[in-house]
Amino acid sequence: MNTEEKEQGHAGEEELAAKQQAGEQNPEGADTGEQTASEEQGGVHAELAAALKLAEENNQRFLRAQADFDNFRRRTRDEKEQFAKYASLKLIEQLLPVVDNFERALATSKDNKDFDALLKGLDMTFRQLDQVLATEGLQRMETVGTPFNPEFHQAVMQVESEEHEEGTIVEEMQKGYILKDKVIRPAMVKVSM
Amino acid sequence: MNTEEKEQGHAGEEELAAKQQAGEQNPEGADTGEQTASEEQGGVHAELAAALKLAEENNQRFLRAQADFDNFRRRTRDEKEQFAKYASLKLIEQLLPVVDNFERALATSKDNKDFDALLKGLDMTFRQLDQVLATEGLQRMETVGTPFNPEFHQAVMQVESEEHEEGTIVEEMQKGYILKDKVIRPAMVKVSM
Repeated sequence: MNTEEKEQGHAGEEELAAKQQAGEQNPEGADTGEQTASEEQGGVHAELAAALKLAEENNQRFLRAQADFDNFRRRTRDEKEQFAKYASLKLIEQLLPVVDNFERALATSKDNKDFDALLKGLDMTFRQLDQVLATEGLQRMETVGTPFNPEFHQAVMQVESEEHEEGTIVEEMQKGYILKDKVIRPAMVKVSM
Repeated sequence: MNTEEKEQGHAGEEELAAKQQAGEQNPEGADTGEQTASEEQGGVHAELAAALKLAEENNQRFLRAQADFDNFRRRTRDEKEQFAKYASLKLIEQLLPVVDNFERALATSKDNKDFDALLKGLDMTFRQLDQVLATEGLQRMETVGTPFNPEFHQAVMQVESEEHEEGTIVEEMQKGYILKDKVIRPAMVKVSM
């Protein structure tokens, strides 16, 4: 519809240019007698009517474009609100089975007090949680042994090291995370000096 | 800017109506001699020039409104993409401490094999996870003892019951969840008959 409107817009311009040219071919104030003047006058009146019609058409086109814009803006705002309200819906739906398993493992262990069963159950639950977050685009940084990079790492301590080159991460205090291409938490690390 | 454009639009219409009225006050074809015809002709030409100018102004106004619309549409699309890409960012950031604690509890227990410490640590982690999801607007349904409602519950079995009225939920097989005002998983329940 937008393209169509644009074409109409161009057509309007060409029409207008044609009228202006036609006007130049009948220059005004040429006193060639009563009847000719009257004839020319009729032509000018026709041109005037056409020009007024075009002006009104262009005005309607403008008002329509503006109304379309207003509707789109309103719709966009509503969509944004809905989207923000349920932004986390997809992730939460994926997390429900994790919550189920977590809850079940805890409830079962409170009865049977089996350490190995609890650890095994929760190890699986943890891997499931990790998997859900990975599907969303979350990646853990692997830091130990790599060169310190302030874009990804936060140095909390510098330590002497015989085995490592200067500026190498020797220990990780807290995991660093990347979501898609954004560092959402830098890794907290110890760096060799 | 939109309101301003609208006012201009109305002004254009009034101007146009005024011109049309002016045209009627000088009816065409009144042969009152060479000079008067020439004078009137001059007036019509001025009106024509004004009408053509108005048509062009309205056309420019239309093209500008359309360009504004196009820009807005493009910007909206880009914003939507960015928003979708990082829709779960806020929730994931809140989940990172849960992941940290979960991981730490498992790692510690693998060394010391202390059942009570593991259960206590993971009980806290579970409550923390539950709290994060509650903050996002997730609510668990409380079902047992309440009347069955197909909007919220899925009946997996009907059971005889002396103690409960017909259609009462007597047992919950799987938790039901509501996100804000939306049922994202109905509770799976046993219902008395």
